[in-house]
Amino acid sequence: MIRSRFSGTDDLEFIPSCVYDLIFRCHPPPSRQPIPSNSVPTLAATDSGASAKVIDGKLVSKQVKDEVAEEIATMKAATGHVPGLAVILVGSRKDSQTYVRNKKKACEAVGIKSFEVNLPEDATEEEVIEHISEFNNDSSVHGILVQLPLPRHMNEETILGAVNIEKDVDGFHPLNIGRLAMQRRYPLFVPCTPKGCMELLHRYGVEIKGKRAVVIGRSNIVGMPAALLLQKANATVSIVHSNTKNPEEITRQADIVISAVGVANLVRGSWIKPGATVIDVGINPVDDAESPRGYRLVGDVCYEEVSKIASAITPVPGGVGPMTIAMLLSNTLESAKRAYNFK
Amino acid sequence: MIRSRFSGTDDLEFIPSCVYDLIFRCHPPPSRQPIPSNSVPTLAATDSGASAKVIDGKLVSKQVKDEVAEEIATMKAATGHVPGLAVILVGSRKDSQTYVRNKKKACEAVGIKSFEVNLPEDATEEEVIEHISEFNNDSSVHGILVQLPLPRHMNEETILGAVNIEKDVDGFHPLNIGRLAMQRRYPLFVPCTPKGCMELLHRYGVEIKGKRAVVIGRSNIVGMPAALLLQKANATVSIVHSNTKNPEEITRQADIVISAVGVANLVRGSWIKPGATVIDVGINPVDDAESPRGYRLVGDVCYEEVSKIASAITPVPGGVGPMTIAMLLSNTLESAKRAYNFK
Repeated sequence: MIRSRFSGTDDLEFIPSCVYDLIFRCHPPPSRQPIPSNSVPTLAATDSGASAKVIDGKLVSKQVKDEVAEEIATMKAATGHVPGLAVILVGSRKDSQTYVRNKKKACEAVGIKSFEVNLPEDATEEEVIEHISEFNNDSSVHGILVQLPLPRHMNEETILGAVNIEKDVDGFHPLNIGRLAMQRRYPLFVPCTPKGCMELLHRYGVEIKGKRAVVIGRSNIVGMPAALLLQKANATVSIVHSNTKNPEEITRQADIVISAVGVANLVRGSWIKPGATVIDVGINPVDDAESPRGYRLVGDVCYEEVSKIASAITPVPGGVGPMTIAMLLSNTLESAKRAYNFK
Repeated sequence: MIRSRFSGTDDLEFIPSCVYDLIFRCHPPPSRQPIPSNSVPTLAATDSGASAKVIDGKLVSKQVKDEVAEEIATMKAATGHVPGLAVILVGSRKDSQTYVRNKKKACEAVGIKSFEVNLPEDATEEEVIEHISEFNNDSSVHGILVQLPLPRHMNEETILGAVNIEKDVDGFHPLNIGRLAMQRRYPLFVPCTPKGCMELLHRYGVEIKGKRAVVIGRSNIVGMPAALLLQKANATVSIVHSNTKNPEEITRQADIVISAVGVANLVRGSWIKPGATVIDVGINPVDDAESPRGYRLVGDVCYEEVSKIASAITPVPGGVGPMTIAMLLSNTLESAKRAYNFK
């Protein structure tokens, strides 16, 4: 089992040791039933008797990107400006390079101007901050992303804290998180992955107000902000984490489950209340000798079991994954609209 | 029923209408069994068979104040400086004047220098902010408090936002709240009332890690930060609020209950798991013809019923109430220690 990019140290302590040996008995689904790509997402009809509706993140992310592209075209016609997104990559991690490349491509596709800085693994904190400052002062840049993880010799808090809060499209600044937590306060940006989860719930018409929601995992970038968003949408929220003694019992009370813990197939069928909506944020590579890459990706949720009990579920891949980048584009557009006072 | 100073609009919507008529059937307790004022708080022994240990906020707040006074004396001897706390009061609300007077007296008692500004009800936002700026620039002031509520024509967010975060001893700044919410981040100050709740739990040896905790109410100043503090202490936290459909059922699962909703006697005996610890933040005046003042103060918790089921409970008054001011003094001392680099 390899750690997912979303898992924190704390999250990995999550499972009681007695559960470890059970995890790999569950296998990811052999097939899925996505809604046709030209249809409007809805949960009104189910695919088949006992099987959950598949929440199609690829479809929704395409819809979001189309909407963003359209708004950018209108903004450009009205103001002469397009949004700009700067990405700073330190080091040469293969996965980070892939993410950055994908972000660049996604920007180009919707009409966002890309800025990119690549620094060597042994760059200093000062160098990174210098580039951040340049982008902070560049009026054609509306969002600044520092690709994580940073090399170990760098202080993540110091570096992320150098990003101007008005360009913090990642929404990780504590000031944004504080405003997210507070009533009658609103963040400038909402972190992309949890925002993507909420967007999926909204677009599939899942009612949140008054519902019980359980978030599994409390990372700064997914679990915790997802819980704050559900709470702001008037759900009754419980957060399950590495110190929770009876995660299964608590999760089974939820109408909405968001799992962002980074443990393959942790959430079994017995954890889920019949008819619940399940959003699986985990992207966990597990060994697979039959795959040409030697591994395959599975979620935190045992899809095979849970899809028989839930009323709706996100697949992995193709669920939350594609939403993160769509929300990043949406945040960058929002920032540019604020900068140019375009409504 | 009169609104408590802790209740927000949202919190007051809390109770389903069918519960309203039940609330006043519960009366506050005729007598309590506090631990003797010279003893060390402990929950190891119970007072009597079926009755909860009383968590004595008066006793603990006195201990905290004594410790603060001692540290201030040591700091003064070492650095020649004492902490300073500035309070800004706008208007002439009787309750606010009482709070400010009590704060001043408490400051004097422990050796904190008090600064006070009284402005008329019709003062402008600019005038208030001007005074805040003066205190921001005054190195003998380490904490600045703006007494709430402010007159209606003032924007609370703008005014509180003008307080230098290093002097925000109330801990209400969104940057502090954000750091409270995040893992591996720490606020400069923790809001006084929730900090007082945690202090009571700690001093009475109540284990938090791994326990189920329910916070009733999600106000910016008590409920929400209390939930974040319990979560940081590794409890599994659920927040119950006005949109929660089954508050009783959820609350009954908790080992620790903090109620901060501002509704007299809302939390009945049937809401509580036997042996739970109950912290009652509500201070609700209810009509009482027999009292010389025409009202008496009761908590959110039906003490008479709950004290028979819980293992420990805070009374109202004399529970959380006295802790708030003790924590304010403690925050002011912390701030001064940082300013003078005194450890």
